[in-house]
Order: sequence, then C-alpha cells, then structure tokens
Amino acid sequence: MNTALLHPLLTEPVRVRDGVTGIERPVALMEAIEENPAPLMDLANRHIVSVRQFSHETVIQLLRLAAMYESQPVPLHRPLGGKLLISAFYEPSTRTRISFESAWHRLGGDIMSITDPATTGIAKGESLRDVAEMFSNYGDVMVLRDNNAGAVYDMLPSLRIPIVNAGNGIDEHPTQALADLYTILKWRPDLASRHTIRSKVRIGIIGTPGRMRTVRSLLLMLTLIDYAIEEVVVIHPDREIFSEGQREELEQAGLKIRCERRLRQVLNNLDVIYINSIAWVGDTYETLTGDMRLSADLPLKKGSIILHPLARGEELAFDLDGTSHNWYFAQARGAVFVRMALLTCLVQRIGEVIDAGSARGGL
Amino acid sequence: MNTALLHPLLTEPVRVRDGVTGIERPVALMEAIEENPAPLMDLANRHIVSVRQFSHETVIQLLRLAAMYESQPVPLHRPLGGKLLISAFYEPSTRTRISFESAWHRLGGDIMSITDPATTGIAKGESLRDVAEMFSNYGDVMVLRDNNAGAVYDMLPSLRIPIVNAGNGIDEHPTQALADLYTILKWRPDLASRHTIRSKVRIGIIGTPGRMRTVRSLLLMLTLIDYAIEEVVVIHPDREIFSEGQREELEQAGLKIRCERRLRQVLNNLDVIYINSIAWVGDTYETLTGDMRLSADLPLKKGSIILHPLARGEELAFDLDGTSHNWYFAQARGAVFVRMALLTCLVQRIGEVIDAGSARGGL
Amino acid sequence: MNTALLHPLLTEPVRVRDGVTGIERPVALMEAIEENPAPLMDLANRHIVSVRQFSHETVIQLLRLAAMYESQPVPLHRPLGGKLLISAFYEPSTRTRISFESAWHRLGGDIMSITDPATTGIAKGESLRDVAEMFSNYGDVMVLRDNNAGAVYDMLPSLRIPIVNAGNGIDEHPTQALADLYTILKWRPDLASRHTIRSKVRIGIIGTPGRMRTVRSLLLMLTLIDYAIEEVVVIHPDREIFSEGQREELEQAGLKIRCERRLRQVLNNLDVIYINSIAWVGDTYETLTGDMRLSADLPLKKGSIILHPLARGEELAFDLDGTSHNWYFAQARGAVFVRMALLTCLVQRIGEVIDAGSARGGL
Repeated sequence: MNTALLHPLLTEPVRVRDGVTGIERPVALMEAIEENPAPLMDLANRHIVSVRQFSHETVIQLLRLAAMYESQPVPLHRPLGGKLLISAFYEPSTRTRISFESAWHRLGGDIMSITDPATTGIAKGESLRDVAEMFSNYGDVMVLRDNNAGAVYDMLPSLRIPIVNAGNGIDEHPTQALADLYTILKWRPDLASRHTIRSKVRIGIIGTPGRMRTVRSLLLMLTLIDYAIEEVVVIHPDREIFSEGQREELEQAGLKIRCERRLRQVLNNLDVIYINSIAWVGDTYETLTGDMRLSADLPLKKGSIILHPLARGEELAFDLDGTSHNWYFAQARGAVFVRMALLTCLVQRIGEVIDAGSARGGL
Repeated sequence: MNTALLHPLLTEPVRVRDGVTGIERPVALMEAIEENPAPLMDLANRHIVSVRQFSHETVIQLLRLAAMYESQPVPLHRPLGGKLLISAFYEPSTRTRISFESAWHRLGGDIMSITDPATTGIAKGESLRDVAEMFSNYGDVMVLRDNNAGAVYDMLPSLRIPIVNAGNGIDEHPTQALADLYTILKWRPDLASRHTIRSKVRIGIIGTPGRMRTVRSLLLMLTLIDYAIEEVVVIHPDREIFSEGQREELEQAGLKIRCERRLRQVLNNLDVIYINSIAWVGDTYETLTGDMRLSADLPLKKGSIILHPLARGEELAFDLDGTSHNWYFAQARGAVFVRMALLTCLVQRIGEVIDAGSARGGL
Repeated sequence: MNTALLHPLLTEPVRVRDGVTGIERPVALMEAIEENPAPLMDLANRHIVSVRQFSHETVIQLLRLAAMYESQPVPLHRPLGGKLLISAFYEPSTRTRISFESAWHRLGGDIMSITDPATTGIAKGESLRDVAEMFSNYGDVMVLRDNNAGAVYDMLPSLRIPIVNAGNGIDEHPTQALADLYTILKWRPDLASRHTIRSKVRIGIIGTPGRMRTVRSLLLMLTLIDYAIEEVVVIHPDREIFSEGQREELEQAGLKIRCERRLRQVLNNLDVIYINSIAWVGDTYETLTGDMRLSADLPLKKGSIILHPLARGEELAFDLDGTSHNWYFAQARGAVFVRMALLTCLVQRIGEVIDAGSARGGL
C-alpha cells in the first residue's frame, strides 16, 4: 500500500519522551524523607474533604508513598484487590475522574462510575443524605465531584464509607493540592523539612483565592511548609480576591502574603509560578483578563517552575511545553500517584504496601 | 491550620452505625433454612424477567444464599472471575445499576456499562433484536432497565446469554421483589416455611398495583408465602388500581386482598407496611395524593416494619429513619446480596459457592 | 402462580444456537496458517490508525491469533492483567465500544470509559494535544472514536501510549476491516495465501468508498489479498463515489475495481457481498437510495456470503438472518477476537499468548 500517505508517527513505535516519566526524582524524594507509617495508619477510614485535615507529617509521608509508587514501573502487588470505588462526578471532569480511576485500578480495585447527574436518583429529587446511605452499601470508598460546595457535607452524616472530595464548587480540591506540593517537593526535596531546607522560595499564584478551589486548597497546603516560603505573591488584576477571613486564616497559619496586580513586575523574582485562570462559578466559569498570560518570551527566573492544574486555557502558551519551566505535565502525572497513596491509606491497606516500600527503598 | 473550621465528622474516622450492617439476622435466616442446591442449579442460564418464574423453594434457597453472602464480611472467593456483565440502563437509575454492578464486582466479575440511550445503536434506530444478538457476543449476562415494558421481550428471541429484568416500564422488577421478601424474612425467619411459621402477618401496600412495577412484582412474590399472610391491604385513594386480571390472578394464587382508601384507618393493624409513591409512566411519573404519607407521629403498630424501594419522596418522613420501623435501609442493603445470589446461579457458579456456604454454615 | 402467562422462552434455559458460535471454522483457519510471531512482535507499542500500516503477513498472523482466541471457549490465561484501557468514544457507538471493552476484559485488563464528550475537558475547550498528554499518564492503551477525522492525528504528537482508531469521521475504521477479512478467511481459509488459494472470488461492495470509513478501510485491506480477488464491484447509484486519488491508490495496489449502478444486474455473480448504507457525515448520516436493499428473495449466488458492519438499517432484510448467506452475525462476533489479538500485540504480551497458542494448536 501507499505508505507515503502515512503520518510519520504511524511508521514507528511510540516514543517515550523523557523528563516527565523518569523515576530519578521520585526516588530522590522518597529517599530524602524518613519513613514513618504512623500518620498514614491514622488515615484509615477517614473522609478527605479539606486540606485543613492534614498535618505536615501526614502530608510528607503521603507524598513519600506517592514517590514510592511513582518509582515503581510496575506495582509490586495489588493492595486494593476486591475493593470497590464509587466514582461520582456530578460536574463534568474527565481528567480528575480518570486520574482517580487510574489510581484505584492500578491498586487492583474495581470501580462503579457515575458521570451524568441526569442518570441519578438526584435527578428524581432524591436527597443526598439517602444517596450517601445507599452508596455506603455499594462501595468501599466514594469520590465526589459536585459543583455545589455543600453536597459533600450533606452526605457526611449518613456515610458509612470514606468520601474523598474531588472538587466541591469553589470551596476545595484537596487531592489537587497534594499533587501541587508533590511536584514542588520533587523539584526541591530539601523543602520537605525545616531541617533539610537549603533556601526559602518565593511562590507566585495567578488566580482568585476566594473563587478558585484549587487556589484555596493550595494556599492551605502551603501553610504546612511555611518555613520554606519567603513569601506568596498573589497576582490578580482586582482588589477583592479573598473570601471572608481567608487571608487572615492563612497569615495566622504563618504565610507571608503579598498581592500584586501586574504579572511582569514580579515574574523574574518567582521560583514557583502557579497559574489557573478558570474559576468555577456554579456550573459555568470566569476567566481572568489583562496580562495574566505565561509564555516563553517572558522574563522567567532561571530554574523556576510553572504549575497549572489544567485543563489549559489561553493563559498558558504552548511554547512553554518544551522548556525546563514546564512542570505542569509532571504535576498532572504525579496526581495519579498521590491519589494512589491516599486511597491506599483510606482503605487501611498501608500495612502491606509500606513493607514493599521499605524493601524497595532498601535497594 | 484552623481546625476549628472543620466539620466535626472530618476529625474522626467513619463511624459504622449498627442495625443495618449487623450479620446476626442474615446468619439466623441462613440457619433457619435447610440448604437445598437443586433449585439453584436449575437457574443456570435462565432469563429472569417475571416473578412468575419462581417457585417457593427456589426463592427460599436464593434468599438463603443471599443471607450467606451478607453474613460473610469478606467474600470467601470470587466465583465470577473472568465473567462479563453488560449493565444496560436505558432508563435513569443509579441506585439499581450500582446495586447490580456492586453485586457482580463483589463476585469477581468485570462490567461494561451503558447508561445513556443516546449513545446506543438504538439511537441510530437499531432493532432490539440485533442489539440482543450483538450483546450475546460481548458478555456472559445482561441486566436491562428500560421504560418500555416490551423491550426485554423483544430481545429474548436473539439472546444467547441470560438477561435479568431490572425494571421494564410499569410491568415488573423481580429482583426488587426478591429484596423485599428477603427483608421480611430477615425480620421473621419463621415465615420462610409453612412448617416453621409462628403467626400470620398483615401486610399493607401503599401504591398502585396496576401501574407500579415494584408493587406488581411484590404481590406476585407474596403469593409464594400465602400461608404466612393474614391479608394484604392495598391502600390507595382511587378505585381502579389493578390492571386487567391482576387481582383475579393474585386471589387464585391464594392471596387475600382487601382495598382501603384511607391510611390512618388501617395503620395500627399492619405488621408490614410497603410504600412506594412513584409510578413510572413512560419516562415520567405520577405521585400519590391525599394522606398517603408515613411519619413517626402516626399510630404505627408496635414491632411493625416499613419497606420502601427508594428513592424516597415526600411520602416517607425522615423522622422514621431513627426508629425501629426503619427496615427500608436494610432492604436497600439486602438487594446487593440478593442480586449476588441470583447472578451466581445464572452463570452456573453455584457449585463452588454452596461448598463455601456449607463450610461457613458448619462453623 | 399462573405460568400460562409466561413467555415460552422464560420457561427454559437459554438456547445456544449454532453456526455463529461453533469453533470448527476458527480452528480450521488457525491450522491453515503457519504461525509466525515476528510481525506480531513488531506491533508492540504501535499506534493503529490506518489499514495502510498493515502488511499481508502482519494481518494474516493477527487473524490467526484471533482464530486461536475464538477457538478457546475459555481463555487460557489473562495476559493483560493490571493493564488499563482508556475507551474514549466521543461519537455514539455502543457496539464498537462494548466490543473493544469486551476484548480487553477477556484478556484480564481494566477499563476507564468516556462515553460523553460533554463530560470531557474537550467540552471546556481543552486541546486534544493536552488530552493525549494526560491520557498517557492514566492508561496503557487508548481507543478513540471521534466524528472528526483529524482528532486522532492531533493526539499523536503528545501520546506516550498506543492509540487505536475506532472510527475517525469518514476516514478509516481499521479494526472493522480486520473483522471483515477475518470473516472472509473463516469462510475460505485458502484465501489466506497465494500458495493455498483454490479459486479467486468476486467481491461486491454496496456503499460509498469516499464517504464511508468502513468501506475505505475494507478496500485498503483487500489490496493485501489482491491475488485472491477476481474483481471488486462497487455498487452505487451515483457516479462520484471515490475521494480524490482513492481509486488510483487501490488500483496501483493491485485491486481490479468495477463500478455498477444497479444491484440486481451483478448480484448472482458475487461470492461476497458487503453492504453498509450508513455514511457518517459529521454527527449525522446519509442513507443510500434506490434498489440497494438485500433480501432473501433476491437471486443470491449459491454459497455466497453477506457482510454488514451493522447497525442494520432497511438495506438488510431480517429474512436473511436464517439463511446460509448470513455471515454478518459471525462478522460482529469475530470483531471481539480480532480486537483481542490486536490489543495483545500492542501491549507486548504476545510472547505469553503464542506459547499458549502453540500448545493449543498442538492438541
């Protein structure tokens, strides 16, 4: 046949590009953190709704476990065999849903997915309280994405299985924040502890703390490594960007926060730049305006990294993908391992895995 | 961080509330019934569309098997390993779909789900006859929910795998009726046989026998324990509530049926109250009017139980959830084990399980 | 109960009708082809988008493997244990989706399904390039159905896992063409090689080569057995039915092509009749007009076979189902085994399976 008509990428095997998929950095992170199973044991049968639930040591050990998973090309065993996940995404989100389902499947569990509110009892006017009661009979863990911030809280009283908040309206998205910090620590393992830190970092956040769940959860997460942060620079064209009491809570928790209205003025001074221009409001969203756009031609600090929860909009130029600043792809990849770590703990399977991990670490 | 802002249920592990999840009652039911594998063997490769297909002994042995499954915190093995379920829900129903899928997964099988008619060949005008022919190539068992009562019957001639009717319009819902009877027998195991019965019960049904598939199937199921029923009181504000020939068939089968138009007049006399105010009509539904609402302040008979197929509407007050009359949550939970029992038989895996069951029973 | 009201098919176990489900023909085909693992090894980590990627030997060995799978009532083992498939169907297609998912599950793998574009990042305006980047983190293989012919090509540059084209607009549908040829070879194993062929065949195609992806891919596939084809008769009421350069490419590859505008004139002369009256155009379709309809009363050649990718429209009469000309059901069934064969190779698991296959063949 006329193979001249073939796209060149169809004439060769898939190329595994490097950088994103290497195991050096997760191995380095794993070895930089001393193993301590205790806080992971304490996560058994816990709901995970807010970053406020996490302590520094719990998060660091979770990220160590994530690094252990990422450093294993093939999982050593399937600790969640026979366990059932209810994956309920009442707000459209293929990325987060597939990321959670991939994590669960890699651990050996089975899944029941709900991707369309129109097919649920809720569409028949059923109360979330009853839905939670039912789901407690059907699965071992539930993951919920809902554009109503209160939905997950309405379910808590009648749940008999752990629930993980995969994004509740404009409130929180804790596993995304875990993935954000995981990326930062793979970049700088020394930031994991106040005893190993070599130098503080300046973190820029382009987004709306009061209206973006990813930013809200990230800021709470950053308070756990306040010792590592010179300051957090929130970059936004408007003045009213925090929700009531939000900035005060963060500052009381030890974050130094500065607000800037122009991106160019601070860019060359930032070690980490987190950008997310999508603010979910109900089931629609607003995008930032002005000069809040990152591209390769801007004066980015040497060695600085860019994070983005994705999906990407116009605020993040494709010409950054090929640069050393692109850590947003590693961030997306890492989210799978972070969720594997968390889910392993929730179903009380950490015992098996840590053994495997110690063995692995001992190599 | 400011944990004072945390919901109290986020500061402790999930509480497993009792009552719904205890194994005492399923163990008692299992031991009250003498094991007899023969009728379960006969279910191999059978379609399950109507309650009319069941004999007393078949149902009792199915419910014994369901009790065996419920009494095992962890399944002893996975009898459906490698088996594929096609879960086709052309009418919205998360509860029933997830209940079936949970049952199949707990037995170790894999699943292909169809939740949206718009994504099916049927949307391209394909005949159900061809769909059945195709599905016979893809799976080992099919579960169908369709708001057209005739759909399942249109598929029968070209099916080469068993199909389970998960609700066909206003016709039948046989596995729901199995779950209803399972709940009644967990409450009163002596009703399982005319030889063990201590006293007859009076059963009230709030619903429309001629237009509600759950009520239609339950009434047929009750004819199998006619020896245990003082009378069935159907409570409905209207006069024409049976479909043609329905009441005659039930009475010929041995049911004593009385009709009442007011709930309060009979309530204090009922041992079992089944309520379902949703009657599917095409793809919409009607709700009952009048005084057909149950709440904790009504003169319920001491020791009486309330059943409801759920999803709940206004007809069932939340203040009943905390009372001893609430058996509708146990009913929903039991549906998973009833479906596990039925599916095990359809794919001819009962051999393995009964051995395990005998072993378990022998403990 | 009144079992007289039961549908007769509910009173007996499922009948497994023969013909479609026998293993004689796949066994015969498997034994007619000498095993040669080399070209299957070469399929490891390859994208499969166009039939142009296949050589004669690769296709023949793939179909031998498919025959091996079909001749095993129960898979000997589960070579894809722990592997994850991303099943993304952005254009409605239950048949093809479930066929792929059935193939993957039978091999022991797990699946994440996307059945509704409205629930994807694409609906948020995300680039396919980013979607491919993400999916590369979540799964081991991706299957894509999209009514936009360019979507699969847009994904190639950022994919780090193999993708299988399950139908891209009016362009191609390579696995369907594999299933088509598989059916032809089960009917006439001697056509698998120029050394074993007993007599050439005349193949009629009722459809639009330039607008039907199934016809486009089938014609390319047929060039691989040009030695076995007397001529291909394309039957269509219009004159302009090829896309630019299409007919020239096929003829340069060795196909003799004749166009006819009336079905009756050529029917009694055709050994294989392929009919498909649905041409997807964007997200709607056109159907052929005129006398392009097959039914049992037409002068079909004795021993000739009819193929149809299904779903069936008015162009294929039900009265053909019971005749010996009906090979379209076998074709649909075979598609599962063809996909099992291809997927096994893409994830580099052919090693294990061939051993099993040799063993099986040696019996």
